[in-house]
Amino acid sequence: MSQNILVIGGVALGPKAACRCKRLLPDASVVMIDENPLISYGGCGIPYYMSGEVNSLDALRATPYHTVRDPAFFAALKGVETRIQTRALSVDREKKTVLTRNLATGKEERLPYDKLCIATGAYPRMPDVPGRGLDGVLSITRLETAERTRKACEQGEIKEAVIVGGGFIGLEAAVALADMWGVKTSVVEMLPHILSGALPSNMSHMALHDCQSHKVAVYTSEKLIRLESEKGGETGRVGRVVTDKRTLPAQLVIFAAGFIPNGRLAADAGLACTPFGAILVNEHMQTSDPDIYAGGDCVSVPNLITGKPGYFPLGSMANRQGRVIGTNLAGGSARFPGAVGAWAVKLFNLAFCGTGLSLDKARAEGFDAVSIGVEQLDRAHFYPEKDMMHLELVVERGSRRVLGAQGASAASDAVKARIDAISGVLQYAKPTVDEISNLEIAYAPPFASAMDIVNAAGNVADNTLAGRGNGQDALEFMESWNNRKENKVFFVDTRPAAGSAQLAAAYPGEWHAIPLEELEQRVGEFPEDRPVCLICNTGLRAYDAQLILARHGITGVNTFGGMQAMLKSGLEP
Amino acid sequence: MSQNILVIGGVALGPKAACRCKRLLPDASVVMIDENPLISYGGCGIPYYMSGEVNSLDALRATPYHTVRDPAFFAALKGVETRIQTRALSVDREKKTVLTRNLATGKEERLPYDKLCIATGAYPRMPDVPGRGLDGVLSITRLETAERTRKACEQGEIKEAVIVGGGFIGLEAAVALADMWGVKTSVVEMLPHILSGALPSNMSHMALHDCQSHKVAVYTSEKLIRLESEKGGETGRVGRVVTDKRTLPAQLVIFAAGFIPNGRLAADAGLACTPFGAILVNEHMQTSDPDIYAGGDCVSVPNLITGKPGYFPLGSMANRQGRVIGTNLAGGSARFPGAVGAWAVKLFNLAFCGTGLSLDKARAEGFDAVSIGVEQLDRAHFYPEKDMMHLELVVERGSRRVLGAQGASAASDAVKARIDAISGVLQYAKPTVDEISNLEIAYAPPFASAMDIVNAAGNVADNTLAGRGNGQDALEFMESWNNRKENKVFFVDTRPAAGSAQLAAAYPGEWHAIPLEELEQRVGEFPEDRPVCLICNTGLRAYDAQLILARHGITGVNTFGGMQAMLKSGLEP
Repeated sequence: MSQNILVIGGVALGPKAACRCKRLLPDASVVMIDENPLISYGGCGIPYYMSGEVNSLDALRATPYHTVRDPAFFAALKGVETRIQTRALSVDREKKTVLTRNLATGKEERLPYDKLCIATGAYPRMPDVPGRGLDGVLSITRLETAERTRKACEQGEIKEAVIVGGGFIGLEAAVALADMWGVKTSVVEMLPHILSGALPSNMSHMALHDCQSHKVAVYTSEKLIRLESEKGGETGRVGRVVTDKRTLPAQLVIFAAGFIPNGRLAADAGLACTPFGAILVNEHMQTSDPDIYAGGDCVSVPNLITGKPGYFPLGSMANRQGRVIGTNLAGGSARFPGAVGAWAVKLFNLAFCGTGLSLDKARAEGFDAVSIGVEQLDRAHFYPEKDMMHLELVVERGSRRVLGAQGASAASDAVKARIDAISGVLQYAKPTVDEISNLEIAYAPPFASAMDIVNAAGNVADNTLAGRGNGQDALEFMESWNNRKENKVFFVDTRPAAGSAQLAAAYPGEWHAIPLEELEQRVGEFPEDRPVCLICNTGLRAYDAQLILARHGITGVNTFGGMQAMLKSGLEP
Repeated sequence: MSQNILVIGGVALGPKAACRCKRLLPDASVVMIDENPLISYGGCGIPYYMSGEVNSLDALRATPYHTVRDPAFFAALKGVETRIQTRALSVDREKKTVLTRNLATGKEERLPYDKLCIATGAYPRMPDVPGRGLDGVLSITRLETAERTRKACEQGEIKEAVIVGGGFIGLEAAVALADMWGVKTSVVEMLPHILSGALPSNMSHMALHDCQSHKVAVYTSEKLIRLESEKGGETGRVGRVVTDKRTLPAQLVIFAAGFIPNGRLAADAGLACTPFGAILVNEHMQTSDPDIYAGGDCVSVPNLITGKPGYFPLGSMANRQGRVIGTNLAGGSARFPGAVGAWAVKLFNLAFCGTGLSLDKARAEGFDAVSIGVEQLDRAHFYPEKDMMHLELVVERGSRRVLGAQGASAASDAVKARIDAISGVLQYAKPTVDEISNLEIAYAPPFASAMDIVNAAGNVADNTLAGRGNGQDALEFMESWNNRKENKVFFVDTRPAAGSAQLAAAYPGEWHAIPLEELEQRVGEFPEDRPVCLICNTGLRAYDAQLILARHGITGVNTFGGMQAMLKSGLEP
């Protein structure tokens, strides 16, 4: 007897699961419903549509072979029946039916299922502030609002915009508006750092600097109070944003303050959910009802680093899970054991990429973690085209386990290459720093260093854990430098004389230029009773200096990433 | 009591091991000897010096902070005593001494050791043919010959060059000569394919096409017979190369026919070696004598895919092993368990990258292996800047184990990113195709597809192993097409009509244009008694077509990578 497969949700995971299932089980009746008119689109492409880099909305709805994925497409080419503008109201697990309502006609209908897939996604967190209902206040998760926003930009209606939330989508939207349309853009972030879950604070500062040096104002630790129209009311078009610290004029306000998993339908049906509202699934993406699968932005899968329920609202995750669910809807037993949370975001000059936990997150999770930073060229130092890359490796003391890595570079693909290499190993092994020291990075001078930055990061972590070469990051260096009158730190720049001359001249008696080559002979210049801070261009010379000093009984702290990390962060002594 | 550490070899591994050891054991006497005057250089950079991309030889000998690594550098900054032009003649393991000869003075000396490191590298395989002693016949493993070659190019002395060997270094040299100096360059390769150990034959064809379309002549399955001077003798400067098929004029002949591990010193001392002459080491890089370590191009480490002794003469491997040996010379117990052999090479338009085994190698190793090919854009298909990438995944039937992967793309870092991601997993886990389907690739539209090519390759492999969607590569397609009169294959192009129109018009009744959208209705056009071959732009539509046809009882074979793979290989129906 032919099976009834019902899929609720038609954006990313739903279509993947439906099509995969139908491929494996051609005789099944596969029905997919979605409450919106437009389905199966690349939601992550919205910022690029807004910016104009993607020409038409249809491009986000098309297959790589340029066919728009509408219900007719799914019917003709995939054998999947699609009902749009159809909302799932409730699931009757006893009778195995889903009550639906056609939003255009109001008609209600019970659809039967043998196997059900819930792919209801997530909804954007909308801060509960006065004025949130004004025109021009929106989130950019749906194609319809993206279209309105772009039109407003094209027609010059937007001079100023405020983005609430400095996460991935918020910053992508900021880049789109500021870079392509010249809109005066501000980002308001409640937390002390942007990209705060993803990046450690020192790297957040790099992202901040990239935004600020491209005329995006970023206000962190700042709370949204209300939105007002030009005339001050809560009706009509938005005119300004009031925070706890300032008032920002804005004809467009984008809420990008994160997502809330849409597990309501599942919870109402009595399926197990996490406290944060995501549907719990086992490694087969099965909910607590074995006939109901769920995946994508509405579920929690294990975080493979912490072992706890994780939340990874990412289009790529939805696609991969969709295939697993499709297989299992068709009677298979494919597995999706969890995720480490690899991510990537391109800002202005810099691309950022990461996997696993950042230092801040690792510590919040209770790990006794330390993060080391390396700045190194992304290919052989003698190769003509190259970029200086930053890589942080987060490791647990004691176990030496690697918990995560984050990178930043102007060369997007190069930093992605490093993070993806580490990511795969985090996913399928529990690497220690030694495994990262020996991680096999494909090498030829146009691609990597013979001792690639990934391996170098492993080595630095190894040295740090072993008590050789302790270090601080650029932010910590600056704090130490700014308080030098009080903390009496002795600052030594070990670069060749040409590199350190300017700062030494600017701060005589405070910035000590002692090139590595001269260190052994000039060790007598070090005071006995003051802490020593070392800096060089990338951290390499200062590490050598640390070891030389150690032989003379002097302990110096290195600056991870050296002046290059300072430069990326827009910091200057 | 202070230890005597002796390191034989000062190019890549030697200096790394020596410096690491000295860092950990500052009181040790660390002595490094090398028979050449120049030490510690980036040998892999030689083709880029030859081409002029790297300006000076010193750049290959410098640290990233621009200090030339000569004996004075090692003495002053690393505390390592270096003796150049000093050859190790023999090792007396009983007395723990090494007999050395100073090649400048002829003076012999016995150097004592407590721990010894052998890093004698490899020497280039020089085919034993008449004329190999002529001027202008050289290998490019040493800086001195690289300098002579570049000077000759700069002075216009080289109009024609022949490179013997179509491996990594041979092709890098061909690119250097043809691209930068306009030298008419030919590559003579004994085997049927270039990059033959690294790439499967279909991808070798892509490399071949890239060379040929940049005016590098490539002669495969061709044997070198002799070299002659202009006048025909075996003295003076080389004038031509005679193969078993032709005579090629050449004022420069570069031997790049592979490397032979230089394990002689070790073998003479009675240390265990492989039949191919490489020194055997355990996972601590220790030889059969526990006081003697060895690493780099002179050793064999386990191939982690086959479990057999492998040989990986790569600068990156030497650097990583060097650190492990340095740690262990200092009394540590660092491990280097083996390698999967990740590699990368940049040719003209295309970069190639791989890891693990190619299909040909896997079969030669006795695996029941199959390789699947995917062509897919390297980022979201709606993102404006993008390249079409080719990825092959080699898997073992039955176990579903992934044995290797190879990629080709114009975007060097993008293909490297994919291979490095797979490489790390191959190194530390034994992934099946399911792990590759779910491999966590950092995603955002500027970096990857939501279902990235890596995941897609896993999916295609899964479908292939499951008997859905069998396929052939571009070379096999062409063979089938060229023999269509005999084999009666029914060729179907499932691209949209615009794509297939030209070929359908050129080959009426032979090239059948049946767009995927029309397939279901036109299934009656398929003959009952002829094999069916499907092709589209990348393989995606043809896979959908396969499934539709299967439901009508028709078996069609897909063409992996479709017309895009044909294009990369320079093939045209």
